[in-house]
Order: sequence, then structure tokens, then C-alpha cells
Amino acid sequence: MADEAAAGDIEPETIERAAVVGCGVIGAAWASRMVLNGVDVAISDLSPDAERIFDEVLSNAVAAYDDLGFATDRRGSHRFASSIADAVTDAQFVQESVPERLDIKAAVFAEIEAGVVPDVLIGSSTSGLRPSAMQESMTHPERLVVGHPYNPVYLLPVVEVVGGEHTPIENVRRAQAIYAGIGMKPVHVRVEIDAFIGDRLLEAVWREALWMVNDGVATTQEIDDVMTHGFGLRWAQMGLFETYRVAGGLGGFRHFMSQFGPTLGLPWTKLMDTPEFTPELVDTIVEQSDAQSGMHSIRELERTRDRNLVGFLKVLESNEWGAGNTIAEHRRR
Amino acid sequence: MADEAAAGDIEPETIERAAVVGCGVIGAAWASRMVLNGVDVAISDLSPDAERIFDEVLSNAVAAYDDLGFATDRRGSHRFASSIADAVTDAQFVQESVPERLDIKAAVFAEIEAGVVPDVLIGSSTSGLRPSAMQESMTHPERLVVGHPYNPVYLLPVVEVVGGEHTPIENVRRAQAIYAGIGMKPVHVRVEIDAFIGDRLLEAVWREALWMVNDGVATTQEIDDVMTHGFGLRWAQMGLFETYRVAGGLGGFRHFMSQFGPTLGLPWTKLMDTPEFTPELVDTIVEQSDAQSGMHSIRELERTRDRNLVGFLKVLESNEWGAGNTIAEHRRR
Repeated sequence: MADEAAAGDIEPETIERAAVVGCGVIGAAWASRMVLNGVDVAISDLSPDAERIFDEVLSNAVAAYDDLGFATDRRGSHRFASSIADAVTDAQFVQESVPERLDIKAAVFAEIEAGVVPDVLIGSSTSGLRPSAMQESMTHPERLVVGHPYNPVYLLPVVEVVGGEHTPIENVRRAQAIYAGIGMKPVHVRVEIDAFIGDRLLEAVWREALWMVNDGVATTQEIDDVMTHGFGLRWAQMGLFETYRVAGGLGGFRHFMSQFGPTLGLPWTKLMDTPEFTPELVDTIVEQSDAQSGMHSIRELERTRDRNLVGFLKVLESNEWGAGNTIAEHRRR
Repeated sequence: MADEAAAGDIEPETIERAAVVGCGVIGAAWASRMVLNGVDVAISDLSPDAERIFDEVLSNAVAAYDDLGFATDRRGSHRFASSIADAVTDAQFVQESVPERLDIKAAVFAEIEAGVVPDVLIGSSTSGLRPSAMQESMTHPERLVVGHPYNPVYLLPVVEVVGGEHTPIENVRRAQAIYAGIGMKPVHVRVEIDAFIGDRLLEAVWREALWMVNDGVATTQEIDDVMTHGFGLRWAQMGLFETYRVAGGLGGFRHFMSQFGPTLGLPWTKLMDTPEFTPELVDTIVEQSDAQSGMHSIRELERTRDRNLVGFLKVLESNEWGAGNTIAEHRRR
């Protein structure tokens, strides 16, 4: 297991042509990452907003890569295709980022399969649907993997790679190699579960945070302050387990666990159920979020986020640590 | 509510003499933060390890402050007192960091109260005990607030300040001012709940992560990789709510919530109960943690952590954002 986790074990594969199907914020960020890594990308999305979204995201990505010192001289081309069939016609890999509904995914996969050559893999950006469920309607289900990224996709390296029951391990490995080839850190989720690894953790935090706002314990600003001035700074470099290993000190992880155990001994969380999502709770959160962040436009927030992320990645790279190692390896290639 | 959250609203108060009662890793880090901010500190801890722990933590803190460019020329003194009474005798503030048991806390508070002058506040580092419960045995319960920090206390700015039913709001404000005076970001937790804000979120993540290891879904390394190469990098600068505001894009937070709702529509998490903390699960986690981090000593991990944190704080300060603003304000004073 442990050997899987090291990025070095996956030999990156360079592709020249890819298709991106669905060009909202996630699809546009995939296309931007690919283009800036030398891949020619054909984009399929008939929404009138798609080209504008892509241009805006690409512009953010170019600024971030310049700031990161990544060469962007071997930039790939991009074109908006007239149909899914047109987009995938000569693609070596297809990334799908359409809305999270099984029927929509099924229709899109049927169009992709009609157009691609047989050995082309399809990565789905779904953050929750199981690959096996998506494979049910497919002619060649062995092609499908989940490749779940985190936004901004052009900067955050992680991608969760999950095979379904019809995905052979070779295809999981090949998808990992292709993602590594565009500078990512593919983490293979070996057991197929809803929401994979990251979104299960995020979901747990989201529900607990909703309870606190619902019960008037804290505002969105106060919750975010505790994160950004506290454990968020820890998790940018060491995860939950490594942080607690250090907290255990010389006594080690066993000592840490003997002190705290699974619930730290107390029924602290309210996660046994879910707060009712009343209009009042929605209003409260919207008002608090406006008070907290409304002085910045979304565009300003995106640029600030990217500047901070680039700065963190440079720090980690110079300290030869964590996500900085993924950046360094990619820079060397 | 919103005005409470801005650090600027609390006028920092400078103190000259403080007592630190309990000198494990947390107490030693409090003492280090105080000493490096010009406060003379008397430490009470009769454990034979206390002086060694303090020396090690202070040495880490000095390296971090040098790296951060904080002047350490107006360093306070420190001394190990022969008793709690000796430590608190001329203190203007007392920070308590003894083990998390109500009976131990009660005995320590009795000794502190016997020695201090009447208007001295006591901050408790407890991460879970309610201040009202701790006040029950006290002669002057109005003195007590919780001041819950995050390790490393000398670098992470956040401190959760919680009053009990006998704590007047003026004393909460005064404690906030004293913490701000040593460079911290005091977040007032207005409703007294177990585990306050941060540890409720951490507890939710901890339980979900234990389930994943227990069920063989992911190793400690894989879970940590998803955090450090993904959402951890986001939370070092924007919390849950601000991140989702950006994710909602131009549609805004209401649009984001209409898409996802409280459970994102699916029973994803396993948090309805707690994994049984069997010896097998403990063994699994210890083995996986050793495979993940065993090549580094705890001392090395601490130094790496601090170097990364200092780098992040500098990035945030130069971008005038988040925890960087707390650093900048403190540097100006």
C-alpha cells in the first residue's frame, strides 16, 4: 500500500492530445492545466458561457504558472469543438466534467464512446458518483476511471483515482501516469466508496460547521478564522495523522492514541444527524458570508487564492516537502 | 457578531509578568511565546522533564522567530518556580496547561487562587472542558476563561477564548487583549459548548479518517496526501465558507448551497457512529504512521513544520491576507 502513495512510483506518461467534455469551472481548469503542460485540447461544451469561463480560468492559470516560474513556452493549443464526437475524435485521453447526474453522465459517455478509438481512457471528475454505477450503461466500461480533482485544478496537485468493478488495474495505473504527466499527484482510492477520501472528510466538516452556525455558536467568519489561523496552516503541509504523530511527541502515535481514542472520550460532535436546511439557515449563512467576504469580488478572491497557493507551493518546494515535491519533480521533467 | 472577529477591534494589552502552570509541550510553547514577546515568565511544573521540554520548545521558537524576522532583543526572562504559589505571586496573568481532568484542574486553580492578587485572570488551555464546569470549585470563578491554543502555540496565532457562566464579558475582552498583546488572534466563542469550534471540526475529521483506515479504504499516508496536496492548501488561507463562496463563482453562496445542501444529498459519511477502537485498529494506524513518517524523528518533523509555517506566514503577510495580517499588525507594534 505505502509504495502506491509515493508519486515517484508512477512513471508519468506524456500525452499530446486530449478532450475535455464539460467546460464549467472544473472542466475549464482541467483544460488550462493540460494546455499549459503542452497538451493540445479539444473542448466540448455547448453552453454560451463556456468560452468565457475557459478564457477567465486560463488567464488565472497563466498568471499562477508565471508566478510559479513554470515555463509556458511549450503551451498546447485549444479549440472548441462542435460536438462531443468532434472533440474526442483524435484524443488520447478524455476528461469528463459534466453535471453530477447519472443520466447526464450516461448520455455523455455514449457520445464519447461512439467517437473515440478503443484504448482511450475516460476520466470522470465526479465528486461523488461511484465509477461502477457510471459503468453500467457503457459499451466499454473498462475505459472509465474517476479522476476527482480539487479546485483550482491547475494548481492543487491531488487527483483521486478510483476504478469501478469493470476497470482493470492497468487502466487505473495508466490514468495515474497520464495525470502525473500533467504535474499531478494521483492518489489511488483502492476501495470504491461514495465521495472517495477527500469529500468524506469535507462533508464531515461541512455538517459540523452548519450545526455551529445553525445553533448560533459561531459565524462563518469565526469558523473560517479558526481554520485559517490554526489547523488549516498545519494541513497545508502535514495531514491529520502526521500532525498527531508530532503532537504525540517522543511518546509516539500509540501514546497519542492511548490519550485520546476514537472520540476523544466525549460525545462532542453533533454529527449523529443533519441540520435541517431551512430557508432561515440559508439566509443566515448567506448574510454572514456577505459580511465576511462581500467586500471582495469572486475574481479578486480567486487571484488572492492563487497568489497564496503559489507562495505556499514555493515554500514547500524550497523546503523539499509535501506538495512541493510534486512541483519539483514536475519542474525537473 | 462580525465586528468581534476582526483582530483590529481588540486593543492589545501588554503585560510584563505572567505565570505558566503546567509545562508540557503546550505550556512550554505558551511560555516561549510570552518570553519572546518580552514577558517575564515564571513556570510551575514539578515534573523532571519540564525544564528539558521548555528548553527544546524555546529553541524551536527562537529559530522560528529568527526566520520570521521578529526581533527577539526585548526577550523576557524565565524562571522555574518552586511551587504554584511562588510562580503566580506577582503575575499579571496566569495560563494553565495541566492534564485534562476536572479534579486536577480544580486542585491547581485552588493553589493559583491562593497566590494571585484578586484581579488576575486565569486562562485555561483545555481543549474540551467547559469553563462553567471548571468554575464550580473556584473562589473567584469570574477570573477564569478558556484560552485554547493550537500547537505550535508560538507560531499559530489563533486562540479560542470562552467565558463560563461566571465570567463577565469584560474579563473575556481583557483576556482577548492580553492574548492579542503577545501576537495572537483571539476568537471569542460566544456559546459555551464542549470542544469549542476547532476541535469539533477536528473531531469530525478524525472519526471519518478512522473509519477509512478501519475499513481499509485508505492508509494514513493516502489520507494525509489528499489533505496536504488538496484542501489543506486551501484552508491555510481561506476557510470552509470562503472557499465555497469562491466555488459558487458568480452565482454566489446561495447558488452554491442550492446545489449541495446540508449533506450534499447523499448519506456519505459514516459519522453516525464511532469505530470500535480495537487493538487491531490501533496497530494498523501505528504501522501505517511508521511507514509514512518513521524515517523522520519527531524533532526533524517539528523543525520542518515550523519552517513551512514560517514560510506560509511570510507569504500571507506579503499578500496582506489571513493570518499574515495578524503577523503584520504584531510586527508593527
